[in-house]
Amino acid sequence: MKKIDSLIQSMLQSYARNADLTNMQAAPLPSKSCVTDLTHRLESLLYPGLTDCVRNSDGMIYAVGNRMSEAYQDMVRLIAISLRYAQTCENCRMRLESTDLPVEEQAEGLAYAFFEKLPTMRDVLRTDLHAAYMGDPAAKYYAEIILSYPGFRALAIHRMAHILFQAGVPILPRMMSEFAHNRTGIDIHPGARIGQGFFIDHGTGVVIGETSVIGNNVKLYQGVTLGALSIPNPDSSMGVKRHPTLEDDVTIYSGASILGGETVVGARSVIGANVWLTHSVAPDTKVLYVPPELRFKSMGTPSPAKN
Amino acid sequence: MKKIDSLIQSMLQSYARNADLTNMQAAPLPSKSCVTDLTHRLESLLYPGLTDCVRNSDGMIYAVGNRMSEAYQDMVRLIAISLRYAQTCENCRMRLESTDLPVEEQAEGLAYAFFEKLPTMRDVLRTDLHAAYMGDPAAKYYAEIILSYPGFRALAIHRMAHILFQAGVPILPRMMSEFAHNRTGIDIHPGARIGQGFFIDHGTGVVIGETSVIGNNVKLYQGVTLGALSIPNPDSSMGVKRHPTLEDDVTIYSGASILGGETVVGARSVIGANVWLTHSVAPDTKVLYVPPELRFKSMGTPSPAKN
Amino acid sequence: MKKIDSLIQSMLQSYARNADLTNMQAAPLPSKSCVTDLTHRLESLLYPGLTDCVRNSDGMIYAVGNRMSEAYQDMVRLIAISLRYAQTCENCRMRLESTDLPVEEQAEGLAYAFFEKLPTMRDVLRTDLHAAYMGDPAAKYYAEIILSYPGFRALAIHRMAHILFQAGVPILPRMMSEFAHNRTGIDIHPGARIGQGFFIDHGTGVVIGETSVIGNNVKLYQGVTLGALSIPNPDSSMGVKRHPTLEDDVTIYSGASILGGETVVGARSVIGANVWLTHSVAPDTKVLYVPPELRFKSMGTPSPAKN
Amino acid sequence: MKKIDSLIQSMLQSYARNADLTNMQAAPLPSKSCVTDLTHRLESLLYPGLTDCVRNSDGMIYAVGNRMSEAYQDMVRLIAISLRYAQTCENCRMRLESTDLPVEEQAEGLAYAFFEKLPTMRDVLRTDLHAAYMGDPAAKYYAEIILSYPGFRALAIHRMAHILFQAGVPILPRMMSEFAHNRTGIDIHPGARIGQGFFIDHGTGVVIGETSVIGNNVKLYQGVTLGALSIPNPDSSMGVKRHPTLEDDVTIYSGASILGGETVVGARSVIGANVWLTHSVAPDTKVLYVPPELRFKSMGTPSPAKN
Amino acid sequence: MKKIDSLIQSMLQSYARNADLTNMQAAPLPSKSCVTDLTHRLESLLYPGLTDCVRNSDGMIYAVGNRMSEAYQDMVRLIAISLRYAQTCENCRMRLESTDLPVEEQAEGLAYAFFEKLPTMRDVLRTDLHAAYMGDPAAKYYAEIILSYPGFRALAIHRMAHILFQAGVPILPRMMSEFAHNRTGIDIHPGARIGQGFFIDHGTGVVIGETSVIGNNVKLYQGVTLGALSIPNPDSSMGVKRHPTLEDDVTIYSGASILGGETVVGARSVIGANVWLTHSVAPDTKVLYVPPELRFKSMGTPSPAKN
Amino acid sequence: MKKIDSLIQSMLQSYARNADLTNMQAAPLPSKSCVTDLTHRLESLLYPGLTDCVRNSDGMIYAVGNRMSEAYQDMVRLIAISLRYAQTCENCRMRLESTDLPVEEQAEGLAYAFFEKLPTMRDVLRTDLHAAYMGDPAAKYYAEIILSYPGFRALAIHRMAHILFQAGVPILPRMMSEFAHNRTGIDIHPGARIGQGFFIDHGTGVVIGETSVIGNNVKLYQGVTLGALSIPNPDSSMGVKRHPTLEDDVTIYSGASILGGETVVGARSVIGANVWLTHSVAPDTKVLYVPPELRFKSMGTPSPAKN
Repeated sequence: MKKIDSLIQSMLQSYARNADLTNMQAAPLPSKSCVTDLTHRLESLLYPGLTDCVRNSDGMIYAVGNRMSEAYQDMVRLIAISLRYAQTCENCRMRLESTDLPVEEQAEGLAYAFFEKLPTMRDVLRTDLHAAYMGDPAAKYYAEIILSYPGFRALAIHRMAHILFQAGVPILPRMMSEFAHNRTGIDIHPGARIGQGFFIDHGTGVVIGETSVIGNNVKLYQGVTLGALSIPNPDSSMGVKRHPTLEDDVTIYSGASILGGETVVGARSVIGANVWLTHSVAPDTKVLYVPPELRFKSMGTPSPAKN
Repeated sequence: MKKIDSLIQSMLQSYARNADLTNMQAAPLPSKSCVTDLTHRLESLLYPGLTDCVRNSDGMIYAVGNRMSEAYQDMVRLIAISLRYAQTCENCRMRLESTDLPVEEQAEGLAYAFFEKLPTMRDVLRTDLHAAYMGDPAAKYYAEIILSYPGFRALAIHRMAHILFQAGVPILPRMMSEFAHNRTGIDIHPGARIGQGFFIDHGTGVVIGETSVIGNNVKLYQGVTLGALSIPNPDSSMGVKRHPTLEDDVTIYSGASILGGETVVGARSVIGANVWLTHSVAPDTKVLYVPPELRFKSMGTPSPAKN
Repeated sequence: MKKIDSLIQSMLQSYARNADLTNMQAAPLPSKSCVTDLTHRLESLLYPGLTDCVRNSDGMIYAVGNRMSEAYQDMVRLIAISLRYAQTCENCRMRLESTDLPVEEQAEGLAYAFFEKLPTMRDVLRTDLHAAYMGDPAAKYYAEIILSYPGFRALAIHRMAHILFQAGVPILPRMMSEFAHNRTGIDIHPGARIGQGFFIDHGTGVVIGETSVIGNNVKLYQGVTLGALSIPNPDSSMGVKRHPTLEDDVTIYSGASILGGETVVGARSVIGANVWLTHSVAPDTKVLYVPPELRFKSMGTPSPAKN
Repeated sequence: MKKIDSLIQSMLQSYARNADLTNMQAAPLPSKSCVTDLTHRLESLLYPGLTDCVRNSDGMIYAVGNRMSEAYQDMVRLIAISLRYAQTCENCRMRLESTDLPVEEQAEGLAYAFFEKLPTMRDVLRTDLHAAYMGDPAAKYYAEIILSYPGFRALAIHRMAHILFQAGVPILPRMMSEFAHNRTGIDIHPGARIGQGFFIDHGTGVVIGETSVIGNNVKLYQGVTLGALSIPNPDSSMGVKRHPTLEDDVTIYSGASILGGETVVGARSVIGANVWLTHSVAPDTKVLYVPPELRFKSMGTPSPAKN
Repeated sequence: MKKIDSLIQSMLQSYARNADLTNMQAAPLPSKSCVTDLTHRLESLLYPGLTDCVRNSDGMIYAVGNRMSEAYQDMVRLIAISLRYAQTCENCRMRLESTDLPVEEQAEGLAYAFFEKLPTMRDVLRTDLHAAYMGDPAAKYYAEIILSYPGFRALAIHRMAHILFQAGVPILPRMMSEFAHNRTGIDIHPGARIGQGFFIDHGTGVVIGETSVIGNNVKLYQGVTLGALSIPNPDSSMGVKRHPTLEDDVTIYSGASILGGETVVGARSVIGANVWLTHSVAPDTKVLYVPPELRFKSMGTPSPAKN
Repeated sequence: MKKIDSLIQSMLQSYARNADLTNMQAAPLPSKSCVTDLTHRLESLLYPGLTDCVRNSDGMIYAVGNRMSEAYQDMVRLIAISLRYAQTCENCRMRLESTDLPVEEQAEGLAYAFFEKLPTMRDVLRTDLHAAYMGDPAAKYYAEIILSYPGFRALAIHRMAHILFQAGVPILPRMMSEFAHNRTGIDIHPGARIGQGFFIDHGTGVVIGETSVIGNNVKLYQGVTLGALSIPNPDSSMGVKRHPTLEDDVTIYSGASILGGETVVGARSVIGANVWLTHSVAPDTKVLYVPPELRFKSMGTPSPAKN
């Protein structure tokens, strides 16, 4: 026992040394597994006919109502945890004011408002689904997009996280986004504002920053970044618009980077693959590299040995 | 109860408004969790000695036989669900014809054919494994590749999904591919045809489109796209070859994009990193950018304050 | 029964044909699920106040001690499995010598040394956490970084895997790294040596090769590769430095590739996005592409039909 | 492998020898675990406020509705399995006739009728609950009886099993009864007919046979048997009344045995502990043993050593 | 949906009719599964070396401490639920007074006092264990008694439940007792006061009533009842001594019933099997039936056919 | 933390005080949950067609083989634990001699012998099943007996435990018996020797002692005890025949007690309910109480109020 004991003692000293990192004195935080559970529940509320326990429509109303009650209670609890943390944190950038309203009641109100907005949000998702179906000939069924397109999944979770972010809920929406990032390779900050009919094809490596603004019917390919230019002082740039704006009907091909809070890509413009863009572009513009010269070097006849 | 009740009512109205999206009237679909289970089972059938429940070889035949019977039954069930959905779907691009043969019997036949092909497919995987071992000095053991190389994992799942895709099974192979994409960041459409000795190094961000054709002994690095050029009409381009062909022994470095259904990269050619290629290249060609000029700007002596 | 039976028989023949791949005769290997469990335990040891079962600090010492004992025993077991495999493998690049010391005792010693180093490693992680907080204005709380920044998560796991790699533990550290890659899209080989205050923003697609060396206060963005140049012979290049060195305070923007074992990026240098660098750069240098010419093509007035 | 193999072979031969016992050729039967799950669900439907997942009444309707839909579907499935077995069994005493109505539809009808009767049955259970509360001064709360009185639990399950038994469902009700027996030590055959206000105190060892008839407000103590006299021919006595009748307001003390199908205990009679009764008793009769003579033997002064 | 819907509606009406039984308006109660978990935890605290996860003594202190913290928190929670219910119940026999002290603090105090008493209680259990070992030649090991003697298990749980009962905790101790009854067939009311060195052999069917008092070194066999005589008014007899007293060193053989609150079995007395005793017995008395006359009836030579 | 800490400290002192009881220094013992798992597995091996995962006979051989391999390995492990404990125990009645053969090899041999005997044992169980079917008109199907007759379940487990007991395996068989007791209320010591065609009806409260010997075609009812007379010295009576012998074709009615190692109930005899028998009885004898005089006391006309 001696051996393990000394290891544990020095670990405990390490915790004491860095008590803030271990969060041992502070208010608790939502756990990853709870956020995962909540997000799974919300996803299955959006598309109940596509969830794990398929059943005939008898009793569907009760299954849905039950799942919604559970999701509602989960969300109240996780919002309350998030609020309490943000009202008591030290050394943080976004300390919330305590209010006279008890945290639980605030959380109830925020959760209620979230669920009130869900039906409208589903109407928007329908436009996204249509955009995906029209944008990809490999999509044979609408349901296939819901079940197996990471871009659509990341977007559905983003739209939910964004409702919470807009309402001022701390921490929780960011954790939901990271859940989506983890599952899809697509990293959309919950602060990003995204219009209808949005489609991300393939999607791995896409990054959409916190203050991005995206119009309707925009399409992105894998590896696109909507990012910030260099940031001198993180504390003073919090809340400042640091990421670009894409107007309606813009298409951005894979690997392109659009950077800067004042950069606006005008409506209907097309940005070519791998383009690095740090200034605005007028509507109806196609931006491509002047095709960089390729060097073709014949490697000679393959050696017979290779055969 | 009033409060939750009104939320649920408006959610139910939302479902009614978009009944097609909720899939509530339609035939059921394979659930994600079932596809995940099936794929895990199939992976552990490919490499039984490497699975979770390591045991000595006593009784291995029974463990394998048992797992195979279960996987077989799962697969019959999921194929049957997929077929029935595709035979009854509305507003879809690939409605299958109903046949006189009951769906369950079709599914039995398709599952049987799949398992008949597995041993041969394992022989092909062996060539892939060898390619990975020879292609990466960081690989110390063959088993290490099976256990921890995402490129190999994505490929093993692809080869299984591709058998189903070729046999005309709808939906299920695409869900298996997305499972692999989710786990590895590598997005291979189940329609892609891939030769022996294929190796994807690192792999995050790789996209291989539905109608790609890849020869033997090809090697790709992370971030490579084998994609389509812009698509005017998704309905008419379904089934058309939209993605490139790579002949034998081709190597493509990270971040390169090869686009278009008529683009052929000739045998033994090498495509450099980040190259954007939309036309064919003769065999034995090395394609690189003319090295874009780099600008080196000295940033002066660091300020003493930094010390 | 006939039907399934013949399928199983031919599968068993396939195993016999490729017995090495199925690992059926060889020593067992750590299973993925065990490595996943161990890594989860280790992560929750690093930040006990942020783990799933939040509880008040009463009894924390026992919860931590208990988790540590379990992690310790798991690690001893997995190291022993890894050592035994590496001492008996055939056709492998890194066969370990058997020693007089029984494998279990070696494993005990290695696990003990690992846990001795954990507290110091946590001090280093603290510098990484600070770097992330200062480097991203979107980060509102330190805890948010621990809970939802993939770059920080990948790094925490890397630092643990690296301790094991340095101590000569085979297989296990590579599996831990792939666990991190799977969860974050960031692929850091456990051999890479990384200084304090390291920050990877967003991170999807980042690749850091086995022999990379990274100084203090380095920052990388998504899609950066620290890779090798082409490798003629994998067997002879094992152990050779094939990946670059980044000195202190270097920043590398998204999509850049730094390649080659002799390539050194000098202190305080900045490498621009998408730069492809295969040779060394002096300290205090900014390396950017000469901005490649962009072609702007107006696409005319949108057709009224579009409205 | 040889060793295990021969064991398995001889086990398989044993199955072949006794194929009827292993049920390998016959129709399937309800599994114990499914019957356990169904019974748990039904119990929690009876007293939803006392079940595991206590929640506030918001959303209770949905939770109940959902649980009921699930219980309904489970019951349909288990009844169908039971019916099909009983229609195809060989060498059995109760082979059911096949009918034109498909088994699934019969099962639907039977399940529906069961749930229609549940509310009335709950009214009867209320009288049982009241009887327990009035009969035991140790009961402090009604809820305590529901939560921790085995007599009440066994009775609640019996009343449900009896509905099914009366409707002619084979196998399933008997399995439900055995579930109750297993949990409570009280063995009530689902065929027994039991009036209102029934109370079994303590209950371990109580046996109530298939053709027992019990009036209203009857009370039994632990170890009471309502049994059959000896049975010459099991085949011909199936269905014959073999167990006693207890009229209203009868009390039977612990360990008493009342035997025989023609034995009637008249209303308001009291049967003393351990009485062995094989003939009828008029109403308002108290039946006690003539107190058997006890022998009191002094065992002398305890030896000082004992102190 | 119609069909299920009407079933659910009539179930909901049934709940409304008997709202008190469904406990839907009242304060929640401890759930059975929580009480089961708590009792399992407490059992494993009593004998940590015999619990499921056997490990070497390294780290045992942490495992125990961790389990104790968890059990402590569980117990606080369940006591608080029990107290709140008892302070708000209607139509109940034991409504507790509300106090100024918040329920949570009361619960903390009660849980703390419980755990303070555990070590002493273990010393008493040691005497019980010794009594079992000395009383049964079939017991080969002390540990075997802990692992497989239902009498010892029921007693260990009783001693814990009794501490809570004595301290005035409502509901919870009774549920713990019923847990023990369910597992062992031995029904000991948590109110019973039991001395050291107590042993119940086999035990199925034993009943020990609420106000029983049992001295040291008493031994009971299966089927023994320590019960009440008939109870005219349950409300007025609550708290009255209704069950017998057994002085030190008494032995009671199987199936005997000792009844009545004023019945005292004097020290060192022995009560024979099946004796029905309703009055006191002096110390050092052996009480047996005058052996009831047995009737031996020869059944004649077995028919040769039987051979 | 102070509070919990002192509780834990005093618990740890309690462990130290009674180290033997906590088994903290001794060899480990089989855990209850492992014995439960093993027994479940063995039960499902006996009747594979009746287990939880019903499947068609395709692949049954593999499912059975797989389950058998797992049960075999479990049994080896648990026997080894049991042997090692018995070879190192202190203060125990049955310390086993250590042998030159390593414990693991002994355990292998014992497990192998067990499984070799299983098929023959199933043939015996078939006679028990037939006896139950012929003995109870309420039994409609053979399968019903396997699924829901506690007497049959207890017997099946006993027959397996007895094989181990006979072979000298310590601890494990007793734990299997207590598992059966816990599930059925029937307490059969694994040492009891029981002939073919044995049937226990209802069964709750039945006790069959260690050295009982039971012939063929014996039938017992609930509450029957085959016990020992008083035991002066447990250490010297270990192994001595203390329990009765029942010859072939004996029937014993409910509640009867047959006591003493020299008591023999001759073939074909019938022992009436509640008979207390401590001496031998010739073959073909019916033993009944001279019917004890019953006292019938009319309780007068029921008061009109009662109506």
